[in-house]
Amino acid sequence: MLQKNSLAWGRSKSCIRELAAYGAKRKAEIGAENVFDFSIGNPSVPAPPEVDASLRALLETEESVTLHGYTPAAGLPSLRTAIAVDLNARLDAPVSAEGIYVCCGAAAGLAACCRGLLCPGEEAIAFAPFFPEYRVFVEGAGGTLVTVPPAEGLQPDFDALEQAITEKTALVIVNTPNNPSGVVLSAASLTRLGEILRAAEERFGHTICLVSDEPYRELVYDGTLPPCVLHFYDDAILCYSFSKSLSLPGERIGYLAVSERMTGRDEVFAALAGAARASGYVNAPSLMQRVIERCLGLTSNLSVYKNNRDLLYTGLTALGFDCVYPDGAFYLFMKCPEPDAKAFSERAKQFELLLVPSDDFGLGGYVRLAYCVPEEMIRRSMAAFGALAASCGL
Amino acid sequence: MLQKNSLAWGRSKSCIRELAAYGAKRKAEIGAENVFDFSIGNPSVPAPPEVDASLRALLETEESVTLHGYTPAAGLPSLRTAIAVDLNARLDAPVSAEGIYVCCGAAAGLAACCRGLLCPGEEAIAFAPFFPEYRVFVEGAGGTLVTVPPAEGLQPDFDALEQAITEKTALVIVNTPNNPSGVVLSAASLTRLGEILRAAEERFGHTICLVSDEPYRELVYDGTLPPCVLHFYDDAILCYSFSKSLSLPGERIGYLAVSERMTGRDEVFAALAGAARASGYVNAPSLMQRVIERCLGLTSNLSVYKNNRDLLYTGLTALGFDCVYPDGAFYLFMKCPEPDAKAFSERAKQFELLLVPSDDFGLGGYVRLAYCVPEEMIRRSMAAFGALAASCGL
Repeated sequence: MLQKNSLAWGRSKSCIRELAAYGAKRKAEIGAENVFDFSIGNPSVPAPPEVDASLRALLETEESVTLHGYTPAAGLPSLRTAIAVDLNARLDAPVSAEGIYVCCGAAAGLAACCRGLLCPGEEAIAFAPFFPEYRVFVEGAGGTLVTVPPAEGLQPDFDALEQAITEKTALVIVNTPNNPSGVVLSAASLTRLGEILRAAEERFGHTICLVSDEPYRELVYDGTLPPCVLHFYDDAILCYSFSKSLSLPGERIGYLAVSERMTGRDEVFAALAGAARASGYVNAPSLMQRVIERCLGLTSNLSVYKNNRDLLYTGLTALGFDCVYPDGAFYLFMKCPEPDAKAFSERAKQFELLLVPSDDFGLGGYVRLAYCVPEEMIRRSMAAFGALAASCGL
Repeated sequence: MLQKNSLAWGRSKSCIRELAAYGAKRKAEIGAENVFDFSIGNPSVPAPPEVDASLRALLETEESVTLHGYTPAAGLPSLRTAIAVDLNARLDAPVSAEGIYVCCGAAAGLAACCRGLLCPGEEAIAFAPFFPEYRVFVEGAGGTLVTVPPAEGLQPDFDALEQAITEKTALVIVNTPNNPSGVVLSAASLTRLGEILRAAEERFGHTICLVSDEPYRELVYDGTLPPCVLHFYDDAILCYSFSKSLSLPGERIGYLAVSERMTGRDEVFAALAGAARASGYVNAPSLMQRVIERCLGLTSNLSVYKNNRDLLYTGLTALGFDCVYPDGAFYLFMKCPEPDAKAFSERAKQFELLLVPSDDFGLGGYVRLAYCVPEEMIRRSMAAFGALAASCGL
């Protein structure tokens, strides 16, 4: 009979998707050029030319039955090795090919972590603001999402974290650079996080897995280098997607990288594989696995996003808005001049500005602006933001 | 903490994969030409040329951010419409675009059916012999798989079905043409199945969903046309994959088609969408969605499989083996001349013949031969089968 959680998840649209749908309707009504749509985090720069060139080359050189054939569930051995070597070289990350599980994007990886490493009745902790789907994945596995409010600068509030950890805590999820805030977890924060989790493991006598969701790892500005979580805590898993760095969000390809130092690494890996299997995953798309192997280490032209960030942050700050300075990702998190983020998002609509209210990210009082948009739209939007500021008495 | 079912599913290899792994090792030892590997159902004929041609054309004409961008979760609207129109035209199937959910292959679709339409503690019924992953998907959703043994000709035993249905029955899964037997469900069988399920719905006062797993729908021989399940029962869902018909098993693309006549069609659809969402599915691969839209209705050169079937069936029957005549798919189901299928499979290995024992398909005493292999391998294997037959006293 209908599973009521599934029904609810299928019926509920995320606030992001709802606003984007409103945007599509509004563009049809008044012209796309008159709507300033900051709703969706869909990369606006093309994939690097090597992606399509690799596709063409593969079509020339590989046999059809190989190119489009099944791969092992965890991915092509050569790709798993290449990913591990890349992580070793760039991040000095303690991972090997045996710990790499190639999956259908970060969402599939996170869902496998929840389903494989958390039992019904257990808890996962996320730090607000967080990507709303975390709740669906955790509850989908029969767990409870426990949220920890942020401290100054939107780094985690560690006193609150210590309160939040219980004997039921199985997973802790971080997201750096962060969607929706663009904040990168500092080395100081990760050091403290590692200390607290090790102490909690000791206290409760079981592993607490730290899952670091990092689809924006390469989208960082001003020379910021996001510290690699695996250096701060051993029982950790990187969850990565090529969606943003290579502008391939629809192709659904990414990986999980289980730390070599993870307690019971092989069992953890098997549980992830089994969770993916029971969810109907067979292998990540085979053609795209081969493309990724040829394009590892490349990125789209990310300087476009930096330029957009600077324009938007400078412009909005000059208008009197209070914005979180984003070190990475392509989101700007702006404090609402009125207490209710939804009311502020509605107010912005009057000026044809589509800003996502922060409530679904686990934190009230902000809006998220996705600035993976044409630069000229940002320039043209400033008059509308000016009118919005004036309407709030800024 | 580690979820023990996930751990078990991640650790257990299917007997198919184990035999294939043995085959790879053995080929390395004695040369690929000396191993007769009938273990895996990986298409042996290339995708039709239109697949790669469509890929090339899309790379020429579509913008990168569109081509590789997110699509709606249920698939591109144009593809959903095209699939519905194709099903209307070819099968006169009562489906519309609103009932089509494009998914990452049949496995993803079946897993969504189990997770969306069956609550923990409920039951799903499958007819032996059945594809072993059904058990993983059903148990993964917290349900119990109830199996019904076959009657004459491997059609369902309907008396046994009537015994198996309880008030907990939420799903009934059929697979036509069948993996591992190649048997196509007859119109008479489907008529009887529909009658029984309607009576059970009446008796228990709730919907029982019939899910028809049909990745081999186009792989039929001798003019056999598999009757469309949607004509025999209203509360039914087709689960399809392009893996076999277009030789694209690694690309993970297929669809669910919910009957227009399904009780509460929109709720069922939402529950499927929510189940997929909670499992981390975002959309089926975007590039491949566009390829499929251009290649609907095409197939690989399936006559190769017919030729293989004829060779193998004729050859083995002449040697005295008792085989189920396959109307479709690319599997031959052969009765073992000794009671224990695993022992027979081990015996066959002595002759370098890799035959999958049937126990994991829910039925003892048979082996499955995947004949999606080079024709010359079948020809050369006959001497080995002859020796195997002799060793069994045939």
